[in-house]
Amino acid sequence: MTSTPPAVRSPRSAGNVGVAADPEPRVDGARVLRTVEELAWFGADERGGVSRLGFSPADDEARRYLADAAREVGLVPTVDPAGNLIVRRPGARTDVPALLMGSHLDSVSNGGRLDGAYGVAAAWEVLRVLAAHDTPLRYEPVAIAFANEEGSLFPYPFWGSLAVVGQLDNPEDATDVNGASLRRPLRETGGDLDRTAEAAWPPGSVGAYLELHIEQGPVLERAGVTIGVVDAVVGRTIFDLVVTGRQNHAGTTPMDGRADALTAAARLVLAVESVARDRKLCAVATVGVLTIEPGVTNAVPGLVRMSAEIRDNRADRLATAEAAVLAEVARVDSAGEVDATVRAVTRFGPVPTEPALRDVITAAARELGLSHRTMPSGAGHDAQIIAAIAPIGMIFVPSRGGVSHAPDEDSDDAHLIAGAEVLLRAALRL
Amino acid sequence: MTSTPPAVRSPRSAGNVGVAADPEPRVDGARVLRTVEELAWFGADERGGVSRLGFSPADDEARRYLADAAREVGLVPTVDPAGNLIVRRPGARTDVPALLMGSHLDSVSNGGRLDGAYGVAAAWEVLRVLAAHDTPLRYEPVAIAFANEEGSLFPYPFWGSLAVVGQLDNPEDATDVNGASLRRPLRETGGDLDRTAEAAWPPGSVGAYLELHIEQGPVLERAGVTIGVVDAVVGRTIFDLVVTGRQNHAGTTPMDGRADALTAAARLVLAVESVARDRKLCAVATVGVLTIEPGVTNAVPGLVRMSAEIRDNRADRLATAEAAVLAEVARVDSAGEVDATVRAVTRFGPVPTEPALRDVITAAARELGLSHRTMPSGAGHDAQIIAAIAPIGMIFVPSRGGVSHAPDEDSDDAHLIAGAEVLLRAALRL
Repeated sequence: MTSTPPAVRSPRSAGNVGVAADPEPRVDGARVLRTVEELAWFGADERGGVSRLGFSPADDEARRYLADAAREVGLVPTVDPAGNLIVRRPGARTDVPALLMGSHLDSVSNGGRLDGAYGVAAAWEVLRVLAAHDTPLRYEPVAIAFANEEGSLFPYPFWGSLAVVGQLDNPEDATDVNGASLRRPLRETGGDLDRTAEAAWPPGSVGAYLELHIEQGPVLERAGVTIGVVDAVVGRTIFDLVVTGRQNHAGTTPMDGRADALTAAARLVLAVESVARDRKLCAVATVGVLTIEPGVTNAVPGLVRMSAEIRDNRADRLATAEAAVLAEVARVDSAGEVDATVRAVTRFGPVPTEPALRDVITAAARELGLSHRTMPSGAGHDAQIIAAIAPIGMIFVPSRGGVSHAPDEDSDDAHLIAGAEVLLRAALRL
Repeated sequence: MTSTPPAVRSPRSAGNVGVAADPEPRVDGARVLRTVEELAWFGADERGGVSRLGFSPADDEARRYLADAAREVGLVPTVDPAGNLIVRRPGARTDVPALLMGSHLDSVSNGGRLDGAYGVAAAWEVLRVLAAHDTPLRYEPVAIAFANEEGSLFPYPFWGSLAVVGQLDNPEDATDVNGASLRRPLRETGGDLDRTAEAAWPPGSVGAYLELHIEQGPVLERAGVTIGVVDAVVGRTIFDLVVTGRQNHAGTTPMDGRADALTAAARLVLAVESVARDRKLCAVATVGVLTIEPGVTNAVPGLVRMSAEIRDNRADRLATAEAAVLAEVARVDSAGEVDATVRAVTRFGPVPTEPALRDVITAAARELGLSHRTMPSGAGHDAQIIAAIAPIGMIFVPSRGGVSHAPDEDSDDAHLIAGAEVLLRAALRL
């Protein structure tokens, strides 16, 4: 890999915006793949993959690159005060609501090249195709690259989409993980920390939001299906659990005199798994964090801190699973050997997509002869935020091996192109 | 607590060594308690408890204090080349083997005031009493304060006792946990890193070794018994376990597509506990260390590293329990979801005490009207090392709440005095 970022392709070689007569517009699949490849240069990580943290210099360069690329083909880019990059057709209509299409530009540390970037590249292509054809549309198509969806450097995930729906809390206090203010990095993107409220879109201004994304899980690949029609972004509850036993000498403390925080925690790990795996009360349940004190070979653990995370696309099931986790903790606590406490620290409700948009996406896939299935999104997306002001629809394509947030995140080229085609068809059908 | 270490008591107030006519010598219990209190000044930790790490300045000061205290009452202290402080009666006989009595002077970080120090204080007192009486003895009594039993700063546990039995490996390379050589700290104690081999006692020179120690566990307290007659220092095997699953997104990876290293590890934690607790294959089994990668809320754990430690006072039972741990790991591995490997990294066999010395200790306790019981030592002690060159005997007194290696390590004064009386009686009976 060389260290030179790609130059914007010249208008001559890439083709300029112009109104053509083609009655059945199609995306240029190679162009989508090329944009994805080119975006991967910005923040290319020497360990492999992409580290394009939101509001890092690499993220800013990628934003400028995309703005320049849009301008070169006659589209009209702007950066809103929150750092979102918005692209419109020349002479965009303002008398109709927008059809907003896009995803985010930032990545996690050592992440993949597709998460976010693919949806942005496809939205760019679809807008370009729609600008080149005179198909009459009910909504004005607008492409958007949201800022800082992951929140890996500035820990405000969904920053850009929250600004669009007018829900940024105390943006002026935003700092990165080391305490440095967001003021200067945001100004360098063309944003303004004192004016982020102006990034909000007025009620009724967005007729629909469509987001195309890699699945980030194995469901489509396993089923051999090309298009996922998302019915909901799952809800999520994160618990903090603390198990307090008695730290003791591992050699001199008999088994029946112990209050071992780790063995009690191990029972909770299995109970949390069981809530989803055996009892099927929610879609997934995971213990991802577990730390021990004192954490030495010859001491009975006195304290364990752990997380438990449950997700489901139905609020009632999530509530049932929450209650089951609480009951398991209470059971371990009341057994008397250790104290166990639990506290829900984060709670997002499930966000359903708009049925009418699901139908449009399904019909688009069918029209293109692509296999498809309805499925929830297990991961969070900007779409779930935009749902506060507009009907949302989401399109998934398969992830190889279900891998995401890792350098070997990948999808077949044919799937990436198929997803962009579905996005275009859906836009045309609206 | 003030910051001034205690001065050596004047010979006048403390009483000098002299030959008395008392036919039934007793220890001066108040003097034993005072020595314990005074030793606790050296390395007194502002967090509470004692941090007198082996070969630290505090450890060196305590050694000097004890040497001075011995000299003031007419005893003869020497420091051997390994840093062990050895005290003899004036005119000690060299034509008979030694009755070595003692324990260690160093503590763990933020440990208690009794572990090691109590046994040293009692040995000092017993030697002083034996020096003051003309009771004929088969062996010449010698008190010893072993250097660096814990190995908390210089990670060579049993340093001093290993030197006495001639089993120090490459002592000239010894460094502390930061890589600094032991050469200078050892020289400041009066030792010499190039001459540690001279600290070894010749074959036959030790007729018996007696060590008095707090139990560090709850067995005696629970049973309401004052004196523990140790039948063996337990053997110990430490395993390193590695469980390798597949790191994945906790939201998008269905439960039936996971290879969760933590849930597999949780099963192993419970299986290891069960080897001792339910199956009773060994005395104790403990998982004290467990770390997760990547260790974040929203990722299925891909890797877990953990320890498993088993102890028993019988070699055959330890071997059976070892096999059981290996079988549990194999079972998790062969289930196919994750890879699980196990490796024994440390293995000490059990060390039985000398039956004749157990009988002497038991008879001494009976003579003093003290309740007693035979029990293993779950923790390691210098005695298990000295067993390589001499018959060993160990005496335990109860630990309040079984607590040790912690600031609130404590024992009743009456128990501490009783233990010293038993040590004296046992020495007299030999």
